[in-house]
Amino acid sequence: MEKLYESVEKKGTVCVGLDTAVEYIPESLRKSYDTVEDQLFYFNKKIIDATCDITATYKIQIAYYEAEGLSGLNAYKRTLEYIREKNIPVIADIKRGDIAKTAEMYAKAHFSGEFEADCITINPYMGIDTLEPYYDYLKNGKGIFVLLKTSNPGSGAIQNIKSENNETVYEILATLLEKEGERFALKNGYSPIGAVVGCTHVDEGKKLRKMMPRTFFLVPGYGAQGGTAADVSEYLNDGNGGVVNSSRGILLAYKRDNPDNLAFDEASRHAVIQMRDAISAVSKRG
Amino acid sequence: MEKLYESVEKKGTVCVGLDTAVEYIPESLRKSYDTVEDQLFYFNKKIIDATCDITATYKIQIAYYEAEGLSGLNAYKRTLEYIREKNIPVIADIKRGDIAKTAEMYAKAHFSGEFEADCITINPYMGIDTLEPYYDYLKNGKGIFVLLKTSNPGSGAIQNIKSENNETVYEILATLLEKEGERFALKNGYSPIGAVVGCTHVDEGKKLRKMMPRTFFLVPGYGAQGGTAADVSEYLNDGNGGVVNSSRGILLAYKRDNPDNLAFDEASRHAVIQMRDAISAVSKRG
Repeated sequence: MEKLYESVEKKGTVCVGLDTAVEYIPESLRKSYDTVEDQLFYFNKKIIDATCDITATYKIQIAYYEAEGLSGLNAYKRTLEYIREKNIPVIADIKRGDIAKTAEMYAKAHFSGEFEADCITINPYMGIDTLEPYYDYLKNGKGIFVLLKTSNPGSGAIQNIKSENNETVYEILATLLEKEGERFALKNGYSPIGAVVGCTHVDEGKKLRKMMPRTFFLVPGYGAQGGTAADVSEYLNDGNGGVVNSSRGILLAYKRDNPDNLAFDEASRHAVIQMRDAISAVSKRG
Repeated sequence: MEKLYESVEKKGTVCVGLDTAVEYIPESLRKSYDTVEDQLFYFNKKIIDATCDITATYKIQIAYYEAEGLSGLNAYKRTLEYIREKNIPVIADIKRGDIAKTAEMYAKAHFSGEFEADCITINPYMGIDTLEPYYDYLKNGKGIFVLLKTSNPGSGAIQNIKSENNETVYEILATLLEKEGERFALKNGYSPIGAVVGCTHVDEGKKLRKMMPRTFFLVPGYGAQGGTAADVSEYLNDGNGGVVNSSRGILLAYKRDNPDNLAFDEASRHAVIQMRDAISAVSKRG
């Protein structure tokens, strides 16, 4: 989470989501490469090359690669390697969550070896004890983002159940996570235990920001899902303390509002600049 | 879930968990194969060969294979293929959970293509709407097991939060899942929406069995985690309606109580027979 914080200081809060479905790739690029592996990788590479100087971090959604089997996962691995070469922090959006030895295996899988990332997303449904297998890695610069309040319309089914003490499930979890993070406190004021808080429920986001002043947020839901720059500013602290993800809004910018017929990578760059500036305009330091 | 039900009718309730860590593999087998991929696959193959006539289903825990990167996932794929060849239903223990298009990608990944399984485990924290992308596959013979009440000591942190109506989170979820399953009702009385209910919390298991008469259970926690045959019988309906998983108890049987110095695969067979008979002795039909 140190690398992420530094990256936001330098480049703003944009997180480019590499949720790369084969059908998002322009026909011309698809024709240039014979394998799905190369198509996925070279599409990502062009997006990364076009945006790496203005992007705080990349979030790579593993589901899109798993869906293509081993060749997809080869593209996943090569994309992670390429982002590491560029020395940009990368978040693996894997939403794993399991117990004991199985969680150790997930930690090994995604914090070392071929699929190594800087941060990963974790699902907490099985309990706070399921986070512990990741803790050794947190002492060595890695970070986790725990699902807290997600951006989908039905996210309340479990997350918003109200307890007998009048707190929602996500509020109870927020208190636990903020406390859990204390023992790993970083110099920048945050901890390597972050939280996923979607920007489609702004009142809840504001409340969570107050409850969790030392927790770094990964904020999905911008753009395609409806979140605006003004919404997002409520999740940040003076322009840091979080990264804001957009996936289709950036990857598919070339298919929308593209009067100059920009190449897909140029269009993605424009979309990142627009997003970065829109967010920084409303979240300036006081 | 039809295939699983039929398999339990014929062979009993044992689910062999292929949570194959490299260090579980006997030295002699490891020396016979140069690659981790082959070591994992041939260990699994021998376990499958030794147990397939007495095992209702295999549950393959993907974390152990992800931890070995692409070669691990190659072994994962080959193991799935081998189980399919034997015409035995296989559960992919992937515990994925995500929204909309991302969930569609996970469904594609694990219900078709190289990683195709009959059933998969799903994490419901993000909401009931996140199950919907799997529904088209349920109409075509696939099944999901949704995490409900898990076997780990800390499982209550979220699952046992008590609501303002005095129901726990897992009870609220149980009601939702049982209802959700109704629209896919199968001839055998169950639905393709199953639930994961650990056998380390027996009172809760009994309660859930009553609340969810038409839901098929995947029951982890037997053996190494402390669950007994008597505990398990409370989760079944007349000896069907669920499968009971054991992983290390079977894979590592050769390292424990092995006075005759059986080979690892023979020892695993003995462990399965013992478990099957112990469970059937206490869950006989009335």
